[in-house]
Parts: sequence; C-alpha cells; structure tokens
Amino acid sequence: MNKIELKSLLTDGALATPTGRIVRTLSARGALSATQIARLTGLAKSTVSTVLTELRRSDMVVEAGSESAGGVGRPATALTLNPKAGTCIGILIGQTEIQVILADVSHTVLSDRSAYLAPDYSPDTAIEYVRKLIADAYQGQWQGREGLLGVGIAVGGPVNPVTGKMLRAGGMPTWAGADMRELFGPIFDGVPIFCDNESNCAAIAEMTWGAAQGHDDFIVYTLDLGVGGAIVSGGRVLRGIAGGAGEFGHVVLDPNGPPCRCGNRGCLDVYASFREPLAESERHFGRSMRLADVVELALGGDATCRALIERAGEAGGHGLGLIGSVFNPTLVVVSGRLVAAGDMLMRPLAESFERHTLVKHGDVPDTARTILSPSRFSDNGACMGAVGLVLRHHGRLLN
Amino acid sequence: MNKIELKSLLTDGALATPTGRIVRTLSARGALSATQIARLTGLAKSTVSTVLTELRRSDMVVEAGSESAGGVGRPATALTLNPKAGTCIGILIGQTEIQVILADVSHTVLSDRSAYLAPDYSPDTAIEYVRKLIADAYQGQWQGREGLLGVGIAVGGPVNPVTGKMLRAGGMPTWAGADMRELFGPIFDGVPIFCDNESNCAAIAEMTWGAAQGHDDFIVYTLDLGVGGAIVSGGRVLRGIAGGAGEFGHVVLDPNGPPCRCGNRGCLDVYASFREPLAESERHFGRSMRLADVVELALGGDATCRALIERAGEAGGHGLGLIGSVFNPTLVVVSGRLVAAGDMLMRPLAESFERHTLVKHGDVPDTARTILSPSRFSDNGACMGAVGLVLRHHGRLLN
Repeated sequence: MNKIELKSLLTDGALATPTGRIVRTLSARGALSATQIARLTGLAKSTVSTVLTELRRSDMVVEAGSESAGGVGRPATALTLNPKAGTCIGILIGQTEIQVILADVSHTVLSDRSAYLAPDYSPDTAIEYVRKLIADAYQGQWQGREGLLGVGIAVGGPVNPVTGKMLRAGGMPTWAGADMRELFGPIFDGVPIFCDNESNCAAIAEMTWGAAQGHDDFIVYTLDLGVGGAIVSGGRVLRGIAGGAGEFGHVVLDPNGPPCRCGNRGCLDVYASFREPLAESERHFGRSMRLADVVELALGGDATCRALIERAGEAGGHGLGLIGSVFNPTLVVVSGRLVAAGDMLMRPLAESFERHTLVKHGDVPDTARTILSPSRFSDNGACMGAVGLVLRHHGRLLN
Repeated sequence: MNKIELKSLLTDGALATPTGRIVRTLSARGALSATQIARLTGLAKSTVSTVLTELRRSDMVVEAGSESAGGVGRPATALTLNPKAGTCIGILIGQTEIQVILADVSHTVLSDRSAYLAPDYSPDTAIEYVRKLIADAYQGQWQGREGLLGVGIAVGGPVNPVTGKMLRAGGMPTWAGADMRELFGPIFDGVPIFCDNESNCAAIAEMTWGAAQGHDDFIVYTLDLGVGGAIVSGGRVLRGIAGGAGEFGHVVLDPNGPPCRCGNRGCLDVYASFREPLAESERHFGRSMRLADVVELALGGDATCRALIERAGEAGGHGLGLIGSVFNPTLVVVSGRLVAAGDMLMRPLAESFERHTLVKHGDVPDTARTILSPSRFSDNGACMGAVGLVLRHHGRLLN
C-alpha cells in the first residue's frame, strides 16, 4: 500500500471519486461498516462494495481489530483505514500546557504526552517543547515520521483556521500576531498544518469520539478555570467573523460588575470560572492547589471542596440557562476538568439551568427537552480535536 | 399555463427534475437572471436555458416587469414566475394584531391589511378577523381564490412548524394547545398551511427581501415592546428542540432582578423592552401612547421621547453585546418598530454593543467586524415572512 496515494486521496480534490469519498469518510469517522459507509457517502451499496474490495486488496483498508487497529465494541464487519497507512499529530498550545498526541489513521492513539508551563510562555519555548514531545512520541513506535499525513494545532486563543495566524490578542498575549504555520512548519517539513482554537477543537473531538457522536447540532459548554464553549450547527463549528463565536464566558451579565480579564466588566467568567473557588480552596488549605486536587478531595468527602464544586455548578447553570434561552439546544456537552466531579457538579448544574432558562423541563414532552451530557474527555478533549482536524479531511469535508 | 402543474411542481417531490428545481428557485427568490438561476440550482447553463425556453413557451415564466410583475432595479433580463400562476397568503397572528398579506408568485404584494385587537383575543375571534381580511384582500383583484398555492402563518408564540400545533404557553396563553391547521384549514379548503413563530418568519423576510439578502449566516435582533430575535445558520432558521431558539429577551441577566412575564427574573426583556419607556411617556404626556407615537415625537424633536429611545438603544446594546459574544456574527439585522427612529436608536445601540461585547471594533480589521443593519421593514416583517414560508417551497428547499 502506498502512502503517497493515501496522502493524495486525503489532501487533493478527490471527493469527486467514490474511492476518495470512502477514504475520507473512513478517515473522519474511524471504524465503519460497509452499510454505514454507504449511508454517509450517499454512494450505492454496490459501488461501496466494489471500492472496498479494491481498497482491501491494496491493503489501504483493513478489518477493525486486525493490524493493531484495536478497540472494543465495534461491529464485527467494521473496517478502518490501515493503521500503517499513516499518522496524524495533534498539538495543544494551551494557556499553561503543551500537549502532543500521535495517532494513526485508524483512530488509534499511539502516544499522548504533556508538558506544563507557566502562563505567558513564548512561542520559542513552545517550539522547543513541541520538538521534544514529538521526539518522545515517536520513541519505540514502528511508525516513522515519513508516514505523517498532517498536523492539527489547537490554540488557547483566537486563530484564523484558514491562514493559521493568531487573531486579536485574546487570552494569550505573548502569541499576538503569531503565524502558527510559520512557527511550526519547520518542525514538520512541508506536512500540512491545520489550526483552530481549543474550544472549536473540543467540539470536533466531541462529535468525532465524544458525547456528541451522531449529532450535527449541539453546544459545548466548558467549565474550568475559564468558562467557554463552541457552537456546532449543521455539522459545522461556527467560528464567527473574527473567530469569536462560542465565547460564552464573556457575555456581560452586569456592566457595573467586577472587571474581567477580557477588559469588560461583569462577564459570566467572573462569576462562574473556577479561578476564585480554587483560590478559596488554597486559602482554606493553606497550600497551592490544582483544580484536579479540589475535585479529588471533594470526591473523597471533603465538605469544603464539595461546596465549592456545587457552587460552581450553580453559577455555571446560570450561564447555561442563558445559552439555553439563546439556542434551546438539543444537546449540551458539558466539558472541562470540573466534569470529573460527576453528579456533584452535574446535579446542581442541571437544577440551576432549569431555573435560569426559558423553556422549562416540565413544560415540554420528553422529546423536546434539552439533554445535558458530561463530556467523556478528562480535560476538554481539545488535543484529540486537533488530531480530528486532520482526520476530518483538513476541515473540508465535514467542517 | 396550468395552475395544477405549478402546484405540483411546488408541492411534490419535484426537486429531482431540472424544471422543478428552477421553478422552486424562482418561487423562493423572485426575479432572477438565467445566470443566477444556474448558480443557485447548480444546473448547467445549457440545461437552464432549455428549461427556461420551455417554461416561457408554456407561459409559466415571464420577463420581470411584464404581466404586472413590476418592481424597480431588477436586471434587464430578469425572469419571474408568471404572476397569474398563483398567489400566496401570509397571516400574522400577533399579540395585538392580525395581518393578512396577499402576494403572487412573482413576489408582488397585492394587498396588505391589518386589524388591531386587545391582547388575549381568542382563536375564534382570530378566525373571524382572518375571514374578513381575506375577503377584503381579494376585493378588486383579478386573481381569484382558485389560484391560492399556500398559506403561511406567523404566530406570536411558539408553534411547531411540522405539526402546526402551539408548543408550551409562551406569550399567547389563550392559544395554548391550539392547532393552527385545524383552526384555519376550513377557511382555505385543503390548501397547504405552513406555520412558524413570528421571529423566525421575520428572519425569512430579511433573507428573502430584507437586509440579509445573500446572507446564509446572520442574527435578527428585535427591539420593540418585547426583545426577541432569530438565528440563521447555513441558510437554516434555527428553531430549537422546543421551538425556543432565538429568545434573546429571556436570557437571565440577574437571577434576583425584577420578575419577567416569562416567569423568570431579571431577563434582558425586563431591562430592554420598550414597555416601561412607553409607560413612562404616557405618564409624561398624561395620555395613552403607541410606540410609533413616541418615535414620531422623538423624530420631531421632543427631548423626552428622544431620551427614551436613546436609553432603549443603550439597554438594547447590552443585550446585543451579549449576542455578539455568543456568536461573533457577520451580520445582525436590527428589527422591530423602534428601528423607525433611525440613527437616534442605531448610534447608541452600536456604541453600547461595542462596550458590552468581547471582540471590539478597533481590535480587528474592517473585514472581521460585525455589521449592524437596520431592518428595511417598518414592523418586523413577520407577515411578509409568512408569505416567504410558502414561496420558499414550504420550508423544504431552503429552510
């Protein structure tokens, strides 16, 4: 099987051929049955069958589970792209974290590594860390760099997905004006690079592997040290004219409220982010704490931490109620590291949502109720979404 | 030319044939050139040319301007459906108004009549008024009832566009549980009836004839005695799982604020609707006032009314800023009767929007700035949108 061939099927205008459409669909979705492929591509079953026979003969497509394309619960007849056919890299450039995931085209994660940095690190520092994390990722893999099909970068600030340039200052002032392709291009030697902000990548992760699989219309609502989110409509992640769609944390509740780090006053983020509760826990315990520590202590029965998380659910529910009145969405995926607290967060969140939104649970039949689902990712899934940027055909087929 | 034939082209699954696609596109868009038709349908120019020749020969399509298909500023070669080919009726069932518009398939309005009622009128009263307004509408027209192709109903409350049944109580408690098709069907004798709420109809009017022509992604933001709106994404009006999308007036700013008529507290509507300013003007002048009176007095130089409108712009801008942070939209069409105040409203609105939204005008290049456009409709255009529900192919082609 020819990697060059797969590359051209994934990157060139190959959607016109049935082979191109099938390869791209497998790349975007992972393991699929022939029936699912026919439904998703709109091709006749006989065409799908002929093309699949050809793709299996050339070893580009294999049965899921064979060739190390493991995974549980897949249908017996599921097919994937041959994991040997190529790899993708996802990179998260977050506020205080750089993460690198190496995955193959069958959607198997080969390596997932992170480095934690102080805020406001420079692009040069980032490049250094990315180089190191990628060298580590390839350690001990039989997959070599020559099979790399594309790189996705999730950025903790507004980035233009077309040009790869940072828009506005956003939450990462040291990256203002940075050109992600120019910065990271030399590491990857001509391999295509795709970018989007981390919330949009989180949404791609949710629709590809997460709680929004099979949904074309949903909202991601992130509760973490910041409040954020993303909007998916008709299978598209809405980006906004200046990359600012889904900035739920920056709706102004009280124009005379406390100043927000965005420059405005009284934003939802001021009331519902976990920054202040985290500081409160540090004052209480007299030591430095991470968000995950608070969640762990709360789950272990600590009343102070439990109260902080319940209050975060209550405050977050106000914001979510507002999102509910704007969208009346079918599905909200609640994301961010607070979700690890499980029901301790979700119950007060759901109750507060119900009180603060227009359409009440009790006023509509079951089928017309908004579903709140916790994310299945332990963080917000953004780095997996960066992998998804590549697998979903470079933003061209499904995004 | 055969009306039966046009009916079947518009209502049956005729999108598979080039003729069906062209007829439906002309119905949705009004006057178009052959080049525009080719672009919108995706058909080859030669196919379009052949079909148009046939349609003109059978008199179903005529040159715009001929056969009373008047209108200014249309391109010389523009074609429309023959106005004789059929008519549509749009009905607005508003909080205090019933409106009926009769239009032909070339998009010419033949009659536009309203009746004003006290709030909480009954469906029986509405039927009586609609019968009378429709009889008046046909008076003196050469178009008879036999050419009626469809009826669109814009409702001032949440209605299921598929079933035609009212959802939840919403703003029209006397209509709870009403079935619009059952109620109005007998007037129209089997003609198809299409429904949507008035904000969604306003959005259809804006994209068909208004400030959002040529836009597939925009927000309608309505400032009137209530605050509301609609969301259009990828050419679809978002409806929400329980018909509650776009209820911008019911985002809760302050959970401890004054009670809202929706049952929650501190909704945007409490602060930014024109109900309280209108009451204030009535106290000031010591007489009953309509919203239009306040606008007229303000435009005539009255300082009190001017201040009320400027304050409404300021309060509305807070809400719009919030919508801006959620969507970072390309275009917002500002709608509702306050828009008649022109710059007196739009200037403070734009200034307040800028202060209350995340992405500031000055932080992004021209091409990345949200555009605020006043609606061209003197009310919110909902009744024209009801006509649009029919013309846009019964919600099937473009919505």
